[in-house]
Amino acid sequence: MTTPLLDTKTLERVLDEFAEARNWRQFHSPKNLAMALTGEVGELVEIFQWRTEEESWRVAQDPATAEHVRHELADVALYLVRLASVLGVDLNAAIADKLVLNARKYPSSSTQE
Amino acid sequence: MTTPLLDTKTLERVLDEFAEARNWRQFHSPKNLAMALTGEVGELVEIFQWRTEEESWRVAQDPATAEHVRHELADVALYLVRLASVLGVDLNAAIADKLVLNARKYPSSSTQE
Amino acid sequence: MTTPLLDTKTLERVLDEFAEARNWRQFHSPKNLAMALTGEVGELVEIFQWRTEEESWRVAQDPATAEHVRHELADVALYLVRLASVLGVDLNAAIADKLVLNARKYPSSSTQE
Amino acid sequence: MTTPLLDTKTLERVLDEFAEARNWRQFHSPKNLAMALTGEVGELVEIFQWRTEEESWRVAQDPATAEHVRHELADVALYLVRLASVLGVDLNAAIADKLVLNARKYPSSSTQE
Repeated sequence: MTTPLLDTKTLERVLDEFAEARNWRQFHSPKNLAMALTGEVGELVEIFQWRTEEESWRVAQDPATAEHVRHELADVALYLVRLASVLGVDLNAAIADKLVLNARKYPSSSTQE
Repeated sequence: MTTPLLDTKTLERVLDEFAEARNWRQFHSPKNLAMALTGEVGELVEIFQWRTEEESWRVAQDPATAEHVRHELADVALYLVRLASVLGVDLNAAIADKLVLNARKYPSSSTQE
Repeated sequence: MTTPLLDTKTLERVLDEFAEARNWRQFHSPKNLAMALTGEVGELVEIFQWRTEEESWRVAQDPATAEHVRHELADVALYLVRLASVLGVDLNAAIADKLVLNARKYPSSSTQE
Repeated sequence: MTTPLLDTKTLERVLDEFAEARNWRQFHSPKNLAMALTGEVGELVEIFQWRTEEESWRVAQDPATAEHVRHELADVALYLVRLASVLGVDLNAAIADKLVLNARKYPSSSTQE
């Protein structure tokens, strides 16, 4: 058995139990989760919008900002994994397939030789 | 050793090698990757925008749409993991912390008893 | 002289004075403004994410939500007009051109006869 | 009668006729239009994601990119105005109110004296 690129199984289960315990499954349609994902990405982007690229590398140096970034990254991950989960998409397999496509679309220098 | 909620290690390494082989590291600032994440989420949302919630559950039934959704979900995952990676954020730990906060913020019915 | 589809002139001038008075022009690069636009759209989307389509029609019935929606719509408009402005894009002309393209791409029933 | 900051009346009417002629009103719920807005902003952001801030100022110098930017800005404007319209929000008034709030929140140097 090969190591998955991204192992989401434990998180999928936890998120489903979390939603079930709060009677949230009714709200977790793919359409709604895609919107929630958008909202969280918006919050993540806001951290970087007035910072230069140079400064964006250093956001983790300020403890408060670092914590903020961690929370927003986590929120994006939670909704992404939940969305894939309710759609029955195997995110690991989808990623593996996409990497193959990307490698073909953008051959590396060594591949091109 | 506990099982991680989300294991990103293999994918982080693959993405870094992919970027290195294409001389893309210079473009992968946190600011730029946050923007790229936005763009991909936009493409994902477009799949659902004119569909009802009811219909959004069935996007995986049409093979072409299912493939489209898988690719867009993968793209979002790739940029999310890459962004966390260049920032040095342990996404698994960030998720674990966020789930604790969420559980406090939204106690389940059984927790409330 | 024809009436413009969207007249942005007064707002463009006000926004430029606003930025100038706060020494914000340095932050208002097209790249940064595109990000800020994203963030505001994210806040707008959050209002609708857990509401059904049916409920989304009624957001203006609750005064607090109506006010929230108005503010977020305004924020999106402000960054959109500012972005077009710093790029020197005539938004009214761009819209006129796009409507022609859209009318060709999606002919109406009467046009199709 | 004062000049509006942003005059959307003509465009609102044109968009409503456009939707009516194509039997699209049924799809134009606030929820769906907020999603469509997201998708268009995503396409706009993609233009800037790998460009530096410096380069983002010059996107209009390349004719093809300039045209691309104009189309995406127009698309964002179309959905924003349509969304405000179906919600019955007077975007001009909403902007005027928001500018007052922003001026209070961020006093200019001269105001602060």
